[in-house]
Amino acid sequence: MSKILEIGGVKLSTAASNSRYKRRDDSLIIVIDESATISGKFTKNKFKASPIKIAEQHIKNRSKEKRVFIVNAGIANAGTGKKGKADALLCCENVANLFKIKKESVIPFSTGVIGEFLDTKKQIKAFQNASKNLKSYTWNKAASSILTTDTKPKLVSKLIKFGNKEIKIKGFAKGSGMIRPDFATLLSFVFTDAKISKTLLDKIHAEILEESFEAITVDGDTSPNDSSMLVATGQKEVTITKGTKEEKKLRSSLHRVYKDLASMLIQDAEGATKEISIQVLQARSKKQARSVAFTVAESPLVKTALFGNDANWGRILAAIGRAKGIQNVFNVSISLNKLPLVCKGNIDPKYSEKSINKIVKSKNLTIKISIGEGKEKFSVLTSDLSSDYVKINSKYRS
Amino acid sequence: MSKILEIGGVKLSTAASNSRYKRRDDSLIIVIDESATISGKFTKNKFKASPIKIAEQHIKNRSKEKRVFIVNAGIANAGTGKKGKADALLCCENVANLFKIKKESVIPFSTGVIGEFLDTKKQIKAFQNASKNLKSYTWNKAASSILTTDTKPKLVSKLIKFGNKEIKIKGFAKGSGMIRPDFATLLSFVFTDAKISKTLLDKIHAEILEESFEAITVDGDTSPNDSSMLVATGQKEVTITKGTKEEKKLRSSLHRVYKDLASMLIQDAEGATKEISIQVLQARSKKQARSVAFTVAESPLVKTALFGNDANWGRILAAIGRAKGIQNVFNVSISLNKLPLVCKGNIDPKYSEKSINKIVKSKNLTIKISIGEGKEKFSVLTSDLSSDYVKINSKYRS
Repeated sequence: MSKILEIGGVKLSTAASNSRYKRRDDSLIIVIDESATISGKFTKNKFKASPIKIAEQHIKNRSKEKRVFIVNAGIANAGTGKKGKADALLCCENVANLFKIKKESVIPFSTGVIGEFLDTKKQIKAFQNASKNLKSYTWNKAASSILTTDTKPKLVSKLIKFGNKEIKIKGFAKGSGMIRPDFATLLSFVFTDAKISKTLLDKIHAEILEESFEAITVDGDTSPNDSSMLVATGQKEVTITKGTKEEKKLRSSLHRVYKDLASMLIQDAEGATKEISIQVLQARSKKQARSVAFTVAESPLVKTALFGNDANWGRILAAIGRAKGIQNVFNVSISLNKLPLVCKGNIDPKYSEKSINKIVKSKNLTIKISIGEGKEKFSVLTSDLSSDYVKINSKYRS
Repeated sequence: MSKILEIGGVKLSTAASNSRYKRRDDSLIIVIDESATISGKFTKNKFKASPIKIAEQHIKNRSKEKRVFIVNAGIANAGTGKKGKADALLCCENVANLFKIKKESVIPFSTGVIGEFLDTKKQIKAFQNASKNLKSYTWNKAASSILTTDTKPKLVSKLIKFGNKEIKIKGFAKGSGMIRPDFATLLSFVFTDAKISKTLLDKIHAEILEESFEAITVDGDTSPNDSSMLVATGQKEVTITKGTKEEKKLRSSLHRVYKDLASMLIQDAEGATKEISIQVLQARSKKQARSVAFTVAESPLVKTALFGNDANWGRILAAIGRAKGIQNVFNVSISLNKLPLVCKGNIDPKYSEKSINKIVKSKNLTIKISIGEGKEKFSVLTSDLSSDYVKINSKYRS
């Protein structure tokens, strides 16, 4: 970690708006050199927040100038109509003036409570304050400034060597409730100093998301604000082109970074006491595998049982039985951290209540589900459903 | 209620098996005269319990003789393989011998924990004891004997008059977790003394279920044991034929009975503190209406917010935004017990935080969602998600 203090072409700074949160930095600006290519993926929820709509537009702008990300935590600026859009644009305009760039070169992100308006005066002031203090190494502060119900920052770095050249990856994310594919209340910013075309960057980004942020679920709920940004600053003399060994290496490193961030999100999921990997194998199709994995991962009965250290395989089998694309459960086998639970739809003859009761107390559980119908597979990462999840979410606004 | 003490052609009796539950009647037999027609609808979960598979077979048997329902609570006899099936058949055979009928005329039902075997010796003894004490009026005992995590029995009666003739309806149900369409861990037994053909009875049954038991959800989980039985004993000289005024009247009365039972199930849902009706209007299709209604009804974030007396409309809108078949939320309006929340996808100008904060504390909430795209509608009944739900379900087996 210590080796990667900065990514060439990226500077960051945080400040406090003193609006929703008191005494903490809740506003972030990230300034990216004009050499960069940027890939942005946004929520698939049809209820989109104003900043998302603007970000989707602004990211298309290809002016040869600096780009600035502005992020505020606390207010999602979603469900706020025309005023919400005008507010977000006002922030963009003000920040654009500071850097003497077009407002289209400023890309806004918001996370927090839905349906409340930004205090634009305070918010713009915060961005102004932040702009005076840009540094290349303040990643920890940046990762902390975007948090809402998260209990800790999620920051990952990775160094890749190609002969005597090296490229760096550094990124951070937030999100702990309203988490499901389509990114949920998830904000993620990942940077590399490699040089990559926009087309290739978009492709890599989309493929990696499918098995990282789009393969985690806390509660099945998705948010109007989710955004994942992947930036290649192009500051290192390592140009990545399609189909090369270098591309493969970068792709797998980025994959690792996104998987790590996804895992950190699940570990810090609201009220979570366990990180649970649901691995579906031998499915007839990817679609069937996905459907089974998500149905089990989002079953409140499975999640509460695991919270209670109860390897209630009947509930797992019942969830599989209602998943789309399942015809019968005669060929289904299930194991928990390699201990057998179910064989061909019934309790496994090798099932040992004693061993299972011990293993289910682990903080890391792997539920392997073999459908017995084909060769496709899909894995989902999830958390348990605890009394604390209910406590946190019944009190979020108050 | 007091007017309907019995349904001609039906006798009931309960006993204790002293297996899973101590000191309570957990075994029920219902003896139905040979004049009856019987309609049975079973779980759509692909993971079916042994008794369900047998019940589906036995119900097809049209022998002109008495039929006997046998029900045990505590053990679901699901995920128990060949032995489970043999156990259920053994119970059927023993009861058949008591009444000198074919084993195919005995229809078995089980509810309770998955993956454990019946103690057939104790269970058969209980059915034998029950068979010695058949009465026409012991409905309360019957309704209580089938309960598992339910806190109270659910029993409904209704009298219909046609001129100077009258017919009766009486029925009971159980189920409080693992509740979703496809009946979940739901057992329901409804009887009328009218005379109705099997074809018409099946049709009425299916149509009514669609808007009662198939329109409620506690947690989205479904069970391998769900069964709904509708019996017309044909003891009264009122023959119901298709398309008549009488049929319409009976249908609407049965509808009321099923709606009442469904509502009682939701009121007694695990940990529930509120009964919440999600009414979707102005949808493009029934499918779209259903999808929106269920997505909102099963959103953990919506359910926890309502538990916390927080009318967090942003979460409702976010759930609508991820429902299948939704293109945008620009035309969506939402109200809570007639107070405006959302208008055209944004906070309603008439929104009053004070009034809303008061109304959201009610035990009965109606969330009306107008999609603004068409004329179809669908309503779902659900409960909130409380800390007690988690407590109950993390400790169910221990």
